[in-house]
Amino acid sequence: MSVDERTHDRKFVRTFFTSPTAVEGEDDSAKLLRSAAGLRGMQAPDVWVPDNEDATAPSMRDEGAANIVDVVAEHGAGFPGEIHPRVVWHRDSPGTRYQGFEHMRQIADPENGAGERIDGFVIPEVGGIDDWKKADEFMTIVEHEHGLETGSLAMSVIIESGAAELAMGTLREEMGKPSNNLERLFLLVDGEVDYTKDLRAITPTGELPPWPELRHNTSRAASAAGLIAVDGPYDDIRDVDGYHARMTDNQAKGMLGIWSLTPGQVVEANKGPLPPETGSWLLSVGDREVTLDQEDGVRVYSGDRVSLAETDAGYELTVAGDTLVLGESELREELLDMLDYVPSLDDIVDSMEEFEAAKAAGKGAIAMSRTATVRIDGIDVDISSDRMWDEATYQALQTPITLFQDVYENRPDQHDDLAELYGEAVVERAINVG
Amino acid sequence: MSVDERTHDRKFVRTFFTSPTAVEGEDDSAKLLRSAAGLRGMQAPDVWVPDNEDATAPSMRDEGAANIVDVVAEHGAGFPGEIHPRVVWHRDSPGTRYQGFEHMRQIADPENGAGERIDGFVIPEVGGIDDWKKADEFMTIVEHEHGLETGSLAMSVIIESGAAELAMGTLREEMGKPSNNLERLFLLVDGEVDYTKDLRAITPTGELPPWPELRHNTSRAASAAGLIAVDGPYDDIRDVDGYHARMTDNQAKGMLGIWSLTPGQVVEANKGPLPPETGSWLLSVGDREVTLDQEDGVRVYSGDRVSLAETDAGYELTVAGDTLVLGESELREELLDMLDYVPSLDDIVDSMEEFEAAKAAGKGAIAMSRTATVRIDGIDVDISSDRMWDEATYQALQTPITLFQDVYENRPDQHDDLAELYGEAVVERAINVG
Amino acid sequence: MSVDERTHDRKFVRTFFTSPTAVEGEDDSAKLLRSAAGLRGMQAPDVWVPDNEDATAPSMRDEGAANIVDVVAEHGAGFPGEIHPRVVWHRDSPGTRYQGFEHMRQIADPENGAGERIDGFVIPEVGGIDDWKKADEFMTIVEHEHGLETGSLAMSVIIESGAAELAMGTLREEMGKPSNNLERLFLLVDGEVDYTKDLRAITPTGELPPWPELRHNTSRAASAAGLIAVDGPYDDIRDVDGYHARMTDNQAKGMLGIWSLTPGQVVEANKGPLPPETGSWLLSVGDREVTLDQEDGVRVYSGDRVSLAETDAGYELTVAGDTLVLGESELREELLDMLDYVPSLDDIVDSMEEFEAAKAAGKGAIAMSRTATVRIDGIDVDISSDRMWDEATYQALQTPITLFQDVYENRPDQHDDLAELYGEAVVERAINVG
Repeated sequence: MSVDERTHDRKFVRTFFTSPTAVEGEDDSAKLLRSAAGLRGMQAPDVWVPDNEDATAPSMRDEGAANIVDVVAEHGAGFPGEIHPRVVWHRDSPGTRYQGFEHMRQIADPENGAGERIDGFVIPEVGGIDDWKKADEFMTIVEHEHGLETGSLAMSVIIESGAAELAMGTLREEMGKPSNNLERLFLLVDGEVDYTKDLRAITPTGELPPWPELRHNTSRAASAAGLIAVDGPYDDIRDVDGYHARMTDNQAKGMLGIWSLTPGQVVEANKGPLPPETGSWLLSVGDREVTLDQEDGVRVYSGDRVSLAETDAGYELTVAGDTLVLGESELREELLDMLDYVPSLDDIVDSMEEFEAAKAAGKGAIAMSRTATVRIDGIDVDISSDRMWDEATYQALQTPITLFQDVYENRPDQHDDLAELYGEAVVERAINVG
Repeated sequence: MSVDERTHDRKFVRTFFTSPTAVEGEDDSAKLLRSAAGLRGMQAPDVWVPDNEDATAPSMRDEGAANIVDVVAEHGAGFPGEIHPRVVWHRDSPGTRYQGFEHMRQIADPENGAGERIDGFVIPEVGGIDDWKKADEFMTIVEHEHGLETGSLAMSVIIESGAAELAMGTLREEMGKPSNNLERLFLLVDGEVDYTKDLRAITPTGELPPWPELRHNTSRAASAAGLIAVDGPYDDIRDVDGYHARMTDNQAKGMLGIWSLTPGQVVEANKGPLPPETGSWLLSVGDREVTLDQEDGVRVYSGDRVSLAETDAGYELTVAGDTLVLGESELREELLDMLDYVPSLDDIVDSMEEFEAAKAAGKGAIAMSRTATVRIDGIDVDISSDRMWDEATYQALQTPITLFQDVYENRPDQHDDLAELYGEAVVERAINVG
Repeated sequence: MSVDERTHDRKFVRTFFTSPTAVEGEDDSAKLLRSAAGLRGMQAPDVWVPDNEDATAPSMRDEGAANIVDVVAEHGAGFPGEIHPRVVWHRDSPGTRYQGFEHMRQIADPENGAGERIDGFVIPEVGGIDDWKKADEFMTIVEHEHGLETGSLAMSVIIESGAAELAMGTLREEMGKPSNNLERLFLLVDGEVDYTKDLRAITPTGELPPWPELRHNTSRAASAAGLIAVDGPYDDIRDVDGYHARMTDNQAKGMLGIWSLTPGQVVEANKGPLPPETGSWLLSVGDREVTLDQEDGVRVYSGDRVSLAETDAGYELTVAGDTLVLGESELREELLDMLDYVPSLDDIVDSMEEFEAAKAAGKGAIAMSRTATVRIDGIDVDISSDRMWDEATYQALQTPITLFQDVYENRPDQHDDLAELYGEAVVERAINVG
């Protein structure tokens, strides 16, 4: 078994949803835990994180640990995702680490009734790799104490310090050593708020820096050590477009999971990495992209930044104020450069099946064509783009399908949602291709 | 003591100002050193670097070392910042390293009169970590020879090779070892001109590449090893806006210090990471940001890229050529997405005090509101944005205040400038909050 | 000898051209190999890679290895670039590694007639550094078997996994060890298609992510270990502008080589890092750059996004819809901020000679001036920009010249092309400067 194979039940995690474990001033301090435990379908996350750290006041954390035990014992069996509570931890504080250890012992204890529903723990504020090993050792002791198999508790960490970011570069070397059980590692989760503090970054408006290098390094470490990369919280809950833009940016880095703060965000993030139900053409002008409207099979542009007119000499195409005089084939080239197609799930399955058939017929590479009629200012232009597919292309483009299949296998509670979204027939083909 | 605690007197360094140590053809070859030694207030850097390397001709460097001794002996006691001469060094040249060693011995010698005013040395052109250890060992020998405490001379390095960039990833592991005294490390300074040469990069116009990954890695290493990250020189001295834009970009990476080539740049860079004296609203269209004018408490947009008209149906908002028809609340949402507030020092102190009061009252998180009346084409729109603050937000947003307090404590010569900039009352509150 | 010195014959590699080794269904399965072996001048790559991996169907690879032997034995002596076949390899498959070993033995065997024309091998799909050492050891055995000097076969690797990306960070430490011969390393080549698969990245349109951090890390590793960085294939062969834009982006990272899939791409990539034959002024508005037309020595702007008018008060400059009222010197400043000069080969040689003369006269730094008359809407404005050059600037800007000289020395078959492009006199000066 290679260290970079993913060995946990889930090969993909789209959603990491945190719930406060104990809220002061409520009749039932476990109220939020209880409502989270009842989530199903698209509202239920792949990984649910009863959060006994930042989301819960320090004074409420012992009560929070007890609440986790109660709620998971009562409702855990029916919860469709995995359950990974976050306990307290800090690289610079033995007192905090001790408290985290005690909470893990309590929560994982099968006698308390929740233990067998606990898939693992989330450890925040880790430092260098030696600090990760301390958390690993505490879990080994908890497993020993409760008669659990070594490594049966998964360990996920929050990357929120420069030291932890550097530690990720050593995982591949460290995970095979007989002196630790770091094979239990599962999720690498970026925590950008505390990371921003740790790196002492400042932005004029106080918004978080984008930290592209951190996210790259997290995704790379996940790949090199067989783990799963998850981005941190997006705290402007109102801003659904921004949340999706962040997911798109993450996905291009190989980070397919993201933190969710509300069931509404869970729905968005569960759907985020799934292919769209219908394909669409995008027209890019500068830094703006517009999706063309579909009318009777024609893709219609209705904005003001691009205009097109027919002249005696050919065409005049005006883009953001610059006018080009073009012949017909030049016009097609120019539009082709500005257009991109976003394939639907159905389209992706089609292409994969087409390539598989070609491969079975002894071909190593084939051209995939995509055609459309585009209408700008009432003028129709037929365009066609080719893309060569070989085995490597096929495998690289297979990721959304592999993810879809992982979701389908592990989340039966989402089958109805998927069928409603894509139609039964497309779902059926998608789970059988590849 | 953890390796990632910052252990030097200064926890922040805004400015790294280099002066040639000996200029040929002047009556007094130490003229530039002497004028730099006389700088005070905002013109005086946090770290002054008599530069006996690139800024000084090779033939003048022995005279330069003697000039450093003379000028620092005479004027060092009154200089308000720290003094860290740069000596020659090269990973590939034992002769250069030997010369650097001899100059350090001479400059640090208390008998020569300057030694006790020297806070450390800057070592350029370092390679892998073993090369850093050679420089560290030479400083240990210099300390021993002159009866100085081991580690009393700080060591700063210029990161100007791929090898040095990689070495930064190992500092945390190396700094604790009994075989070296690398705890003396202080500043990690990027040197983009030589780095560009070392990586053999080419740009069409010959301008320096932006090297965002280098700056990230420097800032991360500083965080993981308790050091301070400083960006390299910005050589278009005329371009103050460009210098500020670079600082803003650096600050979002946690790199709060920058090299200065002139006292004018020192002034800009000393103020760079300090919060503004008045808050402002920014309106972003595409890649352009415009600060709204304040007139009688209303924030007025007076550009051409956004226009607004009232119609029977509601509003027409035109942004860079695209027109949206919106109801009143949709208009507010749309504008809110385009607007950002840049808080003043006073605003930041207000928010921190508000959060501290809430925390004292037992609340873990509160919503901070920000409201404004925005005027576009004569139409006033009231907008309001909320942001949740919890302990982590509070700590992440505290960085500019911690920096302000570090400046206030270490730079009494800037108290008058700060009072003039912000007013005595705001300064008083800022040094007491947090 | 320092590990970061480049020790192979070529210090620069612009082009890495792959050819399928055996195509099914052709009379001569080696047809494409044969035509590639006949390339000369700008169509011939610096490194030619008979590709017995992805470009060749798995069932054809034994025939492919035999074809390499035949074609290189017959035509290798006359080929103007180096020859580095790619063999099969996979970090997770001993069977694939065994096949790669056998193919290397066969191809490098001098008795088969091709061995002495083989400069090295390209190893794809490497993992961690231990996997690189296996390939290195197999080459050592092949050299031993065939009586070749140890290290005489160069080893290039394709970086197409997170593990390989991390391994690059350790090369500098590993390359000196007596237990391996990794000094044979030559090219670090990014393979973005498989890398995208390995990191499980998804983009909406299926196009490859830009992976800027991977390219940075590859270039940095090349610098730290004396190797050469090469970017992966650009598969939209039709899109010449896109290919050039990618090269420009790579060059700013120090990655001066790129994969080519066709002789047409080889021509573009061979010219890519060479300075232009004529200098030009660029005017930037937002994210768009326009090259000014030259008419009788005046640089003329003829677009619509910038307009200029003379008024009683001075000038009105309109940029992308925003109008500024400016005095004459303000207008010059504003235009200077928007303008950049791209120097020609001739210009670069001029500047270097000017600096060398100044240095010989005892000056450490001089101002290089660049002047032009710019015409917008019929109004002429004289502008002048200065740039300080010191030794470091001189060395950093020398890279294109060093590359030019490396090309001139190693590629006599391109002398005519260079003379035609630049003129004999400029070529003569360029090979003698520095």
